[in-house]
Amino acid sequence: MDNRVLLGQEAVADLYEQGYFGRPRELGLELSLVEAAYLLDRSRIKVSLNGADLDFQAFFQMASSLEIGFEFRYVVYKDLRERGYYVQPGRPDFRVYPRGGHPGKSPAEFYVLVISERMPLPLQELIEPVRLAGQMRKKLMLAIVDEESDITFYEAKEKAMAGSMDEQEPGGMATLLEDRVVLWDPLASKRLHEHGFYGKPVGERLQLSLVESAYLLEKKQIQLVNRASEALDLQDFLARARQIESDFDLKYSVYRDLRDRGMVVKTGFKFGTHFRVYKQVQSMEKVPHSEYLVHTMPADHIFLPPVLSRAVRLAHSVRKQMVFAYPDKEVRYLEIRRLKP
Amino acid sequence: MDNRVLLGQEAVADLYEQGYFGRPRELGLELSLVEAAYLLDRSRIKVSLNGADLDFQAFFQMASSLEIGFEFRYVVYKDLRERGYYVQPGRPDFRVYPRGGHPGKSPAEFYVLVISERMPLPLQELIEPVRLAGQMRKKLMLAIVDEESDITFYEAKEKAMAGSMDEQEPGGMATLLEDRVVLWDPLASKRLHEHGFYGKPVGERLQLSLVESAYLLEKKQIQLVNRASEALDLQDFLARARQIESDFDLKYSVYRDLRDRGMVVKTGFKFGTHFRVYKQVQSMEKVPHSEYLVHTMPADHIFLPPVLSRAVRLAHSVRKQMVFAYPDKEVRYLEIRRLKP
Repeated sequence: MDNRVLLGQEAVADLYEQGYFGRPRELGLELSLVEAAYLLDRSRIKVSLNGADLDFQAFFQMASSLEIGFEFRYVVYKDLRERGYYVQPGRPDFRVYPRGGHPGKSPAEFYVLVISERMPLPLQELIEPVRLAGQMRKKLMLAIVDEESDITFYEAKEKAMAGSMDEQEPGGMATLLEDRVVLWDPLASKRLHEHGFYGKPVGERLQLSLVESAYLLEKKQIQLVNRASEALDLQDFLARARQIESDFDLKYSVYRDLRDRGMVVKTGFKFGTHFRVYKQVQSMEKVPHSEYLVHTMPADHIFLPPVLSRAVRLAHSVRKQMVFAYPDKEVRYLEIRRLKP
Repeated sequence: MDNRVLLGQEAVADLYEQGYFGRPRELGLELSLVEAAYLLDRSRIKVSLNGADLDFQAFFQMASSLEIGFEFRYVVYKDLRERGYYVQPGRPDFRVYPRGGHPGKSPAEFYVLVISERMPLPLQELIEPVRLAGQMRKKLMLAIVDEESDITFYEAKEKAMAGSMDEQEPGGMATLLEDRVVLWDPLASKRLHEHGFYGKPVGERLQLSLVESAYLLEKKQIQLVNRASEALDLQDFLARARQIESDFDLKYSVYRDLRDRGMVVKTGFKFGTHFRVYKQVQSMEKVPHSEYLVHTMPADHIFLPPVLSRAVRLAHSVRKQMVFAYPDKEVRYLEIRRLKP
């Protein structure tokens, strides 16, 4: 047994042509261990080793020893088959055919990556199949198996972010306090808030967050002083902002990229993410719901599946799309959404 | 100026008796910096330093230099006053009086802890005011100020967890596979699943998670072998479980405590927490919604406010209570819920 189970010619007609199990070969039908376990559990095949029949328990224990991750793949394979999909082994784990399609008739719709809830998932290991699937015009399905063998399905894909806001308005002189910035001039405060949804009005003043202040300073829309009325340039301010928030540069690079793309970017704190993002905000009287939650991460980030699950679930519960942003020469965006196959 | 602003006798009648600002002293009324900034912004008082009047901007910048966290406390004080509450300084940051009550008439209802979104919050620094508030029969209000000066309010309190499940049923012989356990006997599988909601049925078999297996093994309801059919005792199994999940002991101690309290405990993976917990599950035909999401943490855990915010928001969006569990001789439970004051 070398991780494949071989059946005779008669199986091609019985199992492949009826249900697209296995791959026809010169001398018969070849099954993966997962396919064989599935058919053995249904008494569709018998498996013998060295002349003796193996029952399901013996076969399953052996397969679990032979292949790392066998149990997870079995759970996912079984689930997808029982939902009526044709499934074939393939990179990264499976290929799934669209409803009404099958191997030999139509191309696969999904590539499937099987993930254990307990296995940390490096962002780079996710990006690779996302890009591959994109190039092949497939969708990438993530099948995350939890400790009770329940499966949650997600789709992961690259996302183009774009909004339709105009250039920002000029502001004026602002002061950096302990860890936020106050713009004191009432007219400039009103202008910046109403055209671009910058800051939070406090009385007639405007409180600006650190990323907002850095952006407006970089675009020369505000000038900045500290509490001793000494002028601060962008470099001074960035140095101070890094002291307050250790990942400020990462966060700011994403904030700037999204603003440069014409989007409105506000804190996502209430949703536990870095930003909530609007394609457009036309007036402060009618602020729409934000379309996206965006969380920033370094390129070497490692996802923990429960944290990923929580972020996506929360975004959907407030009808937003969950987008992860990471630097890679330029800023790139990865959307992850729940699938119900 | 030593972090207090002193007003004359006439202010007692004007500010204290009309609005419960400040504390009457022998020679007049004493205000905290936060109270003074609030009244100065409304032109209710004038503040002079060394004979010269300070405008709001000058006073605010000075107060922000004198007191760490002044800006956060100002934002929270202003918000609560504008909602019509009487607020006094006090441990940890403020005391808030119930609607219709005021200082001198009724006791405070809430102790308020002001937290910046950016400041990591050690669990122990949260437990201390929670206990203090509990002893004084107050509620503890957390006011978390985000980078845009929006405030999210929470209540934190100790929680007594209890359910009403009976003793579990005996199981039988199970096998530890790669990282989960399978009970092969159909009758025992049915019994354990239907009386106690253990495991997940796969065909007529039952898959048990690691914590379920450890608990049933400890209670001598199952016996366990590995894939080579060698018997595993509880210590063998715990050693293997720790290899698979580095925080297994912590998670298991909470699982066992909740099960011992008569509750039903299942994975909370879909909600991004360790467990979802039911007070009672009477039959598999009518599984109710779970009442709690429980996340375990070591006693030296440090909360990040955005993570806390996400957990509570997600729990409420699925109508569950968010409970954090940590060891402290015995397992203790901390409920955090959103407040809308």
